[in-house]
Amino acid sequence: MAEFKDRQVNLLGSKYAKKLYAEVKDLPIVDYHCHLSPKEIYEDKPFENIGVMWLAGDHYKWRLMRCAGVDEKYITGDADWWEKFYQFAKVAGTAYGNPIKDWCALELSFFFGIKTPLNEATAKEIWDKANKVISSHKLSPRKLIRSSNVEYIATTDDPCDTLEYHDLIAKEGKLSAKVVPSFRVDNIVLARASGYSEYISKLGKASEVNICDISSLKEAIVKRMDYFVSKGCKFSDVGVEGFPTRVADEREADDTFKKLIAHEEVDDASYDGFWGYMYIFLAKAYKDRGMVQQWHLAVTRNSNSLMFEKLGRDMGFDCVGDAFDVKYVKNIIDIANSNNGLPKTIIYTLNPTMYYPLVTMCGAFRDVVLGISWWFCDHKRGMYETLQTLTELGHISALVGMLTDSRSFLSYTRHDYYRQIVCDFLGSLMEDEGDVYAIEVAKDLCYGNAKKLVEGNENNEF
Amino acid sequence: MAEFKDRQVNLLGSKYAKKLYAEVKDLPIVDYHCHLSPKEIYEDKPFENIGVMWLAGDHYKWRLMRCAGVDEKYITGDADWWEKFYQFAKVAGTAYGNPIKDWCALELSFFFGIKTPLNEATAKEIWDKANKVISSHKLSPRKLIRSSNVEYIATTDDPCDTLEYHDLIAKEGKLSAKVVPSFRVDNIVLARASGYSEYISKLGKASEVNICDISSLKEAIVKRMDYFVSKGCKFSDVGVEGFPTRVADEREADDTFKKLIAHEEVDDASYDGFWGYMYIFLAKAYKDRGMVQQWHLAVTRNSNSLMFEKLGRDMGFDCVGDAFDVKYVKNIIDIANSNNGLPKTIIYTLNPTMYYPLVTMCGAFRDVVLGISWWFCDHKRGMYETLQTLTELGHISALVGMLTDSRSFLSYTRHDYYRQIVCDFLGSLMEDEGDVYAIEVAKDLCYGNAKKLVEGNENNEF
Amino acid sequence: MAEFKDRQVNLLGSKYAKKLYAEVKDLPIVDYHCHLSPKEIYEDKPFENIGVMWLAGDHYKWRLMRCAGVDEKYITGDADWWEKFYQFAKVAGTAYGNPIKDWCALELSFFFGIKTPLNEATAKEIWDKANKVISSHKLSPRKLIRSSNVEYIATTDDPCDTLEYHDLIAKEGKLSAKVVPSFRVDNIVLARASGYSEYISKLGKASEVNICDISSLKEAIVKRMDYFVSKGCKFSDVGVEGFPTRVADEREADDTFKKLIAHEEVDDASYDGFWGYMYIFLAKAYKDRGMVQQWHLAVTRNSNSLMFEKLGRDMGFDCVGDAFDVKYVKNIIDIANSNNGLPKTIIYTLNPTMYYPLVTMCGAFRDVVLGISWWFCDHKRGMYETLQTLTELGHISALVGMLTDSRSFLSYTRHDYYRQIVCDFLGSLMEDEGDVYAIEVAKDLCYGNAKKLVEGNENNEF
Repeated sequence: MAEFKDRQVNLLGSKYAKKLYAEVKDLPIVDYHCHLSPKEIYEDKPFENIGVMWLAGDHYKWRLMRCAGVDEKYITGDADWWEKFYQFAKVAGTAYGNPIKDWCALELSFFFGIKTPLNEATAKEIWDKANKVISSHKLSPRKLIRSSNVEYIATTDDPCDTLEYHDLIAKEGKLSAKVVPSFRVDNIVLARASGYSEYISKLGKASEVNICDISSLKEAIVKRMDYFVSKGCKFSDVGVEGFPTRVADEREADDTFKKLIAHEEVDDASYDGFWGYMYIFLAKAYKDRGMVQQWHLAVTRNSNSLMFEKLGRDMGFDCVGDAFDVKYVKNIIDIANSNNGLPKTIIYTLNPTMYYPLVTMCGAFRDVVLGISWWFCDHKRGMYETLQTLTELGHISALVGMLTDSRSFLSYTRHDYYRQIVCDFLGSLMEDEGDVYAIEVAKDLCYGNAKKLVEGNENNEF
Repeated sequence: MAEFKDRQVNLLGSKYAKKLYAEVKDLPIVDYHCHLSPKEIYEDKPFENIGVMWLAGDHYKWRLMRCAGVDEKYITGDADWWEKFYQFAKVAGTAYGNPIKDWCALELSFFFGIKTPLNEATAKEIWDKANKVISSHKLSPRKLIRSSNVEYIATTDDPCDTLEYHDLIAKEGKLSAKVVPSFRVDNIVLARASGYSEYISKLGKASEVNICDISSLKEAIVKRMDYFVSKGCKFSDVGVEGFPTRVADEREADDTFKKLIAHEEVDDASYDGFWGYMYIFLAKAYKDRGMVQQWHLAVTRNSNSLMFEKLGRDMGFDCVGDAFDVKYVKNIIDIANSNNGLPKTIIYTLNPTMYYPLVTMCGAFRDVVLGISWWFCDHKRGMYETLQTLTELGHISALVGMLTDSRSFLSYTRHDYYRQIVCDFLGSLMEDEGDVYAIEVAKDLCYGNAKKLVEGNENNEF
Repeated sequence: MAEFKDRQVNLLGSKYAKKLYAEVKDLPIVDYHCHLSPKEIYEDKPFENIGVMWLAGDHYKWRLMRCAGVDEKYITGDADWWEKFYQFAKVAGTAYGNPIKDWCALELSFFFGIKTPLNEATAKEIWDKANKVISSHKLSPRKLIRSSNVEYIATTDDPCDTLEYHDLIAKEGKLSAKVVPSFRVDNIVLARASGYSEYISKLGKASEVNICDISSLKEAIVKRMDYFVSKGCKFSDVGVEGFPTRVADEREADDTFKKLIAHEEVDDASYDGFWGYMYIFLAKAYKDRGMVQQWHLAVTRNSNSLMFEKLGRDMGFDCVGDAFDVKYVKNIIDIANSNNGLPKTIIYTLNPTMYYPLVTMCGAFRDVVLGISWWFCDHKRGMYETLQTLTELGHISALVGMLTDSRSFLSYTRHDYYRQIVCDFLGSLMEDEGDVYAIEVAKDLCYGNAKKLVEGNENNEF
């Protein structure tokens, strides 16, 4: 594999940028938030073909194909992998301005040594070449992880998860990258979703706590959190629609929680109060364990009801959510901070119109930072927008660096995309070639800051 | 005329851009949304002078003059045309950054062969030259349409309109461009405006339906819609303030409508329910007829009460409206889609902060797209912003292309402005000169997609 | 001093820009809004060292240091000035993309003749050099004002203020710049703040009016306003959180005001009504006196409760506020305008997502303009954004020019920063070198328009 690693996309607009990039391009990757499957990492099955690798689960690509008018047959339907790949190649060839065009070029050059631009005319040639590489190199998850020089992978896991595959990977001890779980609490706070009381029962079983009130709920959560921490967990996450507008006190939160698990009606204000109470509780629990808290804001799930009924969730019908008032975010942060319960917090938003209030709010609390552009926003201009906003309104050293947030093992090339953009950005701000500080900053943004984040105060090397 | 057609403004920043532009600059124009007067097209009276052509009804220019402090006498007052033109020339000469400066340069070079920059010093010279061209060529609406190579014009018409001038133009059969009406339903949904019940009476007469409830209202609308369709109508439109936050059922909508025509008080929720119900009904009716639905969002009308009393509407006092939650738009779209009643829909918004949720929402429904920048947003940076956002979040092939939305026959040059921007944008993304896909895409964005939109599924050539 | 005045930062990207800059760089400064202390101007004490000058009160710099993780000891703590300066230098050296990096370079070159880039390695050398200049030139407030060629300074003052230092400066008659007060009404409209009735008592004493109802409140305000005007006051200001959503009539405003000074509970709608009433009243009073009204919108104060308790206000914990609906701003403007009570009004907002509705609203009222980027927004990209938006949606001649809004005498270099940006912007829009209008416009934006603003209709030379 190592003989490839070409980087076909060139975003380096100045000689300073090129100089910086030479310093960072081979640094290891710390991927502190992704949706990779620990099962797939453990089993390490070789991939079938480039069609499966690209199109079996990537809802970014499905959405792009729908926007271009491709029939659903070639997206989630029963067409074969070559047909699906061909349709995608056609669409990718004219996807001017869309980052998927760049990402595909990066993936093809880096993992397959293919520099031919992907389009309708080249689809067959690329299909053949890529599949030959896959079979001759027996390309598999671990091979991609190794050739990407990944050092640390934080997967995203439900608190009820047994983490058996994390255990197996650790016990086996063969993978160069450390693979640890993250504590994703969506199911705990989505208390009006159908199946909530069933979920709470499941959590009760996993934690061996009889959950009947807010106190036992917290006990169960803490037990699972400690279990996760014992497996190396450092990060938590939540990515639900909306945001709590208020914080209930314990008694009100207890009342509301009891109603929720009894399937009683709960009004918006009560639900918000419960939700806010949980955020304050969780923040303090994370803080006490030296964990990092992540919030993914402004997302709208499953916008198309018809397709949701047909295909279910995560099929490419989520959208950027409407902006909401940052004063609510500040409210939670400020209360947590006043109670000495504010952990290191990374806030991501899909809606860039929230950046100004959000980034300046971050500047008012030492432990809170905006995360790098995410999902719909991680195209070139979106990355620049984030870098510019963060540096104009704050200090560049506060950036914690790139993460993939991806389900695909090929997505590590997005770290390269990010590194090129960081170097181009910094290069444009350097005044002379001898600026040693720019090199230091570039290294921190591409590796050092994420590593520091993982190591936390305890300095536990990985 | 044909000997002019110079394009003075140059927005083509690369050799690739220039190459693409050469391929698209002479393509015909499909203007699928404008406010041209079919009466003026039919009568085809030669213009009096450049002052009348530019300043008799163009509230874009009036607003610019007001911003620059010009006395109202020279705007809507009784100054003579030369005085008004002189004041405008003065203002245009220093209007750095405003698209009107570019549009004037384009119009002067294209229609009059004048390449001198317009300003205070050149006002008299340009006034004389332009007026000489007007009189020697007997410049008239049809001459401008012909020299602009316009193929299709969709005017904007009230459902009560007799469409007699469309008939006269068609019967005469001399105009190269097809001129068809569009179905503009503002007056139907603005049900709390004064004069609503009078309007409904008028609609009843036009449709020969006694409108007394929601059922007869729908019958009347459908009859007028079919009449419009029989005249070649393909597009509908609505451009009112606000957006319905909910959808009433038929019974509630019926109750509300009866109150509205009886001048009874109707609260916001009821009005919204009626309005939402109408949008669902209209969408289905458009879908059944293969029509295209257009929504113009986030506009605030007649902001200055004092000037509204003095001058009335459309005098340059409309503004960009506040952003509102896209979840309401999605609600209507999703309900229509679930009922198999979602036609091809083009959404325009004056408020660019809505782009991210709006464009990603479009990506979740195959038949919904964001329209190109409109009105206050159709300056160079605004066009780029739209192109970038649409391509970063979706596929470039979904862009349906330019429209003028104008009351002026000179505005066809804005298609050229758009074409230059499209070519510059695409040119900056091409990797080598031999990229044949970029040429195809450029042609689609400048002509093909709009033509396809007009032809619809029925493939009815125009 | 005069031998320095170097401008180390170069934002001039074209030869046209350089040409324009040569025409404007030495124009006098009209600083129509700042927070300089008239006491400090009068007393004119020489500065102690560069540490005090930069770090004693500048919460922009404190915030930057906090974002970079500097311990509070070196920010508001008891470290000595050299230690604080050293920590700041370290942070500034890597503050890529933050305007403070540029501003420091400008201040060092302009006032101290120092062209060495500031960073950890150069901190000691620059500390020594700058302090030598301070002591050898006995640098003091007036020396900085003189070397910056400042012609007019409008300070920001509470209506109760005696303005004794303005008197002393005027009586002494030695300062080249005119120093006048501005009428800042935050304390009058923040009627639910603790201490409001005490403030009203103070206002009563200052005006010698027994304030017991809305009528006597207005009498008191008018008396203080006339006193301010007699001292040369031309500008008013308000910069509080939120905005009134409605306007009460006199009777309701009277009721509410009485409750407020009696410490009775007042609901949001009543408070808003009172607040709106006061804005209409104040606008008319300003208009009658030929004053200019300034609104500073979308600010959130003291976001971090813990730090507010420790350090108090203005310590770097204010943030960009959430955007709110511009329709409320329009409502006040429109009512004032309809009552012939709309003075020249400059609106500033910290939240750029409000620009489109706000700027187009300004275009509907002759006397209302958007002010240049302010506080968190006055970085390079922010200034460009404002210039572009204002010119795309209006006419460049409406820009009233730069202000510092600063507490530091060194901040006059920000006028130079602005001038470079204006020239770069205009230069990029010039078509040939001989464009005399661009020179005129550049001069107006950098000096003429602000001077005209100060002189008003009365043409009272300063």
